[in-house]
Amino acid sequence: MLKRKRLDEISWELFSALSPDERAPYLVQSSGRPYHALIAQQFERDSLDLLCDLATRIRRIAKSRDGMKFLSDLLCHKRAMLYFSQPSSRTFLSFYAACQILGMRVAEVRDTSISSEMKGETPTDSVRTFGSYFDMIIMRTPWQGFVEEMAWMLSNTERPLPIINAGSGKDQHPTQALLDIYTLQRSFEKNGGLENKHVVFCGDLKRGRTVRSLSRLLTYYPNIRQTFAAPEALQIGQDILDQLDAAGVNYDVTTDFKATIPDADAIYMTRVQSEWDNPDGEKPKYNWADYSFTAADLLVLKRTGVILHPLPRRQELDPACDNDPRAVYWRQMRNGMWIRCALIANIFGREQEITHYYMMNLK
Amino acid sequence: MLKRKRLDEISWELFSALSPDERAPYLVQSSGRPYHALIAQQFERDSLDLLCDLATRIRRIAKSRDGMKFLSDLLCHKRAMLYFSQPSSRTFLSFYAACQILGMRVAEVRDTSISSEMKGETPTDSVRTFGSYFDMIIMRTPWQGFVEEMAWMLSNTERPLPIINAGSGKDQHPTQALLDIYTLQRSFEKNGGLENKHVVFCGDLKRGRTVRSLSRLLTYYPNIRQTFAAPEALQIGQDILDQLDAAGVNYDVTTDFKATIPDADAIYMTRVQSEWDNPDGEKPKYNWADYSFTAADLLVLKRTGVILHPLPRRQELDPACDNDPRAVYWRQMRNGMWIRCALIANIFGREQEITHYYMMNLK
Amino acid sequence: MLKRKRLDEISWELFSALSPDERAPYLVQSSGRPYHALIAQQFERDSLDLLCDLATRIRRIAKSRDGMKFLSDLLCHKRAMLYFSQPSSRTFLSFYAACQILGMRVAEVRDTSISSEMKGETPTDSVRTFGSYFDMIIMRTPWQGFVEEMAWMLSNTERPLPIINAGSGKDQHPTQALLDIYTLQRSFEKNGGLENKHVVFCGDLKRGRTVRSLSRLLTYYPNIRQTFAAPEALQIGQDILDQLDAAGVNYDVTTDFKATIPDADAIYMTRVQSEWDNPDGEKPKYNWADYSFTAADLLVLKRTGVILHPLPRRQELDPACDNDPRAVYWRQMRNGMWIRCALIANIFGREQEITHYYMMNLK
Repeated sequence: MLKRKRLDEISWELFSALSPDERAPYLVQSSGRPYHALIAQQFERDSLDLLCDLATRIRRIAKSRDGMKFLSDLLCHKRAMLYFSQPSSRTFLSFYAACQILGMRVAEVRDTSISSEMKGETPTDSVRTFGSYFDMIIMRTPWQGFVEEMAWMLSNTERPLPIINAGSGKDQHPTQALLDIYTLQRSFEKNGGLENKHVVFCGDLKRGRTVRSLSRLLTYYPNIRQTFAAPEALQIGQDILDQLDAAGVNYDVTTDFKATIPDADAIYMTRVQSEWDNPDGEKPKYNWADYSFTAADLLVLKRTGVILHPLPRRQELDPACDNDPRAVYWRQMRNGMWIRCALIANIFGREQEITHYYMMNLK
Repeated sequence: MLKRKRLDEISWELFSALSPDERAPYLVQSSGRPYHALIAQQFERDSLDLLCDLATRIRRIAKSRDGMKFLSDLLCHKRAMLYFSQPSSRTFLSFYAACQILGMRVAEVRDTSISSEMKGETPTDSVRTFGSYFDMIIMRTPWQGFVEEMAWMLSNTERPLPIINAGSGKDQHPTQALLDIYTLQRSFEKNGGLENKHVVFCGDLKRGRTVRSLSRLLTYYPNIRQTFAAPEALQIGQDILDQLDAAGVNYDVTTDFKATIPDADAIYMTRVQSEWDNPDGEKPKYNWADYSFTAADLLVLKRTGVILHPLPRRQELDPACDNDPRAVYWRQMRNGMWIRCALIANIFGREQEITHYYMMNLK
Repeated sequence: MLKRKRLDEISWELFSALSPDERAPYLVQSSGRPYHALIAQQFERDSLDLLCDLATRIRRIAKSRDGMKFLSDLLCHKRAMLYFSQPSSRTFLSFYAACQILGMRVAEVRDTSISSEMKGETPTDSVRTFGSYFDMIIMRTPWQGFVEEMAWMLSNTERPLPIINAGSGKDQHPTQALLDIYTLQRSFEKNGGLENKHVVFCGDLKRGRTVRSLSRLLTYYPNIRQTFAAPEALQIGQDILDQLDAAGVNYDVTTDFKATIPDADAIYMTRVQSEWDNPDGEKPKYNWADYSFTAADLLVLKRTGVILHPLPRRQELDPACDNDPRAVYWRQMRNGMWIRCALIANIFGREQEITHYYMMNLK
């Protein structure tokens, strides 16, 4: 468990110069619970296990009307602000629903063109304003580093409050990494667990922050083999491979995705990130069909294999696969709601109440 | 009562080829309650009576603080998504308030330009996404047939959930028809009921989906006379008249609206649907004043007559009529909220709880 | 206490011709509570004291989970519509949070371009529509006089409901005046109270409605001295000075802001209102640095002095002052939420319940 360092005892200049791993201890409460949830690196094996267990309990409690009433009482005294200055209906609605399940009142700022920012206010003042009326900020921005600066800033006011990073530029999207881990963990819970499995990543691995975070978190689980299947120009970064080497993880790098399917326990498909493309740039020369999963590929996938995708998808994942029981990407999306419930409940210290209710009523 | 057919046992190709009347049995639960609420044709006399009674009970229960608390507990464990890709503040707010009265948590997607659809996702994937986090979708779209395709699609997933059509193109707006019936029923409840009355429709009857649906539902009430007053070019469609012939209903078609007023029990004014006009088209040649209701017309209207209008209005209905007790269009709008409460409560099977509370506390 | 006159017994022509002071009696309930909250002039010393006391009780009750649950039960049977046709995230979120604290369900209409107004509806019909589904309207518009016309209109329907003015053009922003009074009252509550203090206003005093309202409300407190520091072209209006003369208030008018700082008990900074400027107009010729508050000015400010600002700020208030305990503008913003809670609770007659809970649990 991470040992807390105080975010109000370090300057922004020093803090912002730290590596993600060095920042992690500043993002926990003295109890070890998350204070802010900003980067995938702040979650270690023990906190991943805690969040996955909590998500499953919440999910099962939510199946009954009485259970939903119990959940909606947990944080009925708290209000959350969703500050989304970048388009995202999926992550937005998932957090929105998670807050509602826990009884939080929610408000949103999405289109900053109708906000006071028109009046020449700095983004820092705007965020401090939003923070004044709420007990938590869930923030998505296109600006790298902004969410961390805001977390540092709020921690240095007389009214600190937690921030959750719901996606910051090309950088971090930690709750996506959590929901991916939770989906893998659920997928193999009746099949020996996540240990010793073979995970294949396919698609645009260079630019997708999802794969980079998930690859790191998988190193906490013993003996997972990772394969990266992508065109050479979009292959996973050397920094990630160095990380895997350092952790002693067994991995492969290939351009032949189709050949990896028969041996895979989990296939993690990703979307072409064309919104990051240089609009003046040349078109890439590779054939996307080589990095797609189709109904024909279902025939060679293991009976116990699973297909994940962070969604939204384009042509890389055929809707004809949707009704196969091994296609878990729709469930994966819903898992996002549950793991976000777990994270918020954990930040506000409600995990014991939830576990107690679960033991009394559902065990 | 309609006998249920299973929407997950018919292909989309077959289902979409059915007539509205043939589709109706696929839209009910085995209990006879609505499953999806998509088309006016799925409501027969018994379900109209049930919904009107339920709306009145909810409306009366809502008058007290204790009653409001009772109502807001009914569906406090459910969440609704309002997906409005077409402008409509009236229908939107009415559904929003209805959900709030029943204690549902609500989220909205209105401006699809800020959604993930920017990332190339299909509308089908978007709707399935929204559905993942919620227990009901209330949908308004400009695309004919889309809401039915989505209802079919969701019914064929492992997590089916009800859809309510809040207006689809030029096509269907079933809850408008329900609120019109409820308003007529309330207007005549101390005056012999809706049977044997004379209803006059006035305005753009060709394009208004409202009149088409209401005309059909009125055939379930014995001996109602229907008069259609409109310029020839905007007169009611022959398909509706054929329907009335088939049902043995007494009707008139006329261009002289003013002559119909003295004998009318209910006058249903409608708005010029200029937003559907061809922008390049010629202007029509008739005089809209002939199809307007003014303060002067109040002098010839029966003492027990009522004026309805789905609102918003333009010049066809003089605001000088607003304070006349026979002008029921503002109450009609509020009736929309109550009948939508009733419909949602009915879909989720809460009508017995409501009736029980009503009998114990207000009878 | 104001003696009530009936808003449904006066025509709009007569009412709109009255001065603000003459309008005030039409805006109270027979109990003396506010009916609509439209203008600063309707609040006298007794109602200011009541609202400040109530805000403090609510604020203290809100510190515990049990207290928050008590508060969120008070108006759980009411729904509020926030109709903001002018950008304002600060006022919007503050009211939003206030409604949520009291348990009200909230809906919003912000971007009127996606509303039914596209269909040619009058604003009056739109507001009556919104009113149909809710129990209170909180309204911000750029149109002078509109909110009062709507309050008059709704009071003359069969379903009257209260309106709160959340800012109308260059005209009135009464809840801003309330939060300013509350902030001053809190700032001096351990320092002899608001009486006998010296308040300095600085900036664009000609166009800022905030200063005009606050100056008036301060006349209710004995022996407050007011100083207006601004460039000549932006100095406070003669009508305000006439009002102060009539009330026998001691005041000064100066262009030398910096000279006023040492003697000030409270400094009220204001923002350049460039959004009202004529886009074709010449640039003003004065030096804004002369009307700014910087870290250097903290050195000459009294130890017990306080700095206020309605926010958002531009360059006239240096962020380097933010961590000084005399900088109360962030607390001022949060006070806005509490005084709005108090106002809404007062309109709906909940002040005794709140006081009772406070006496039983926190005294």
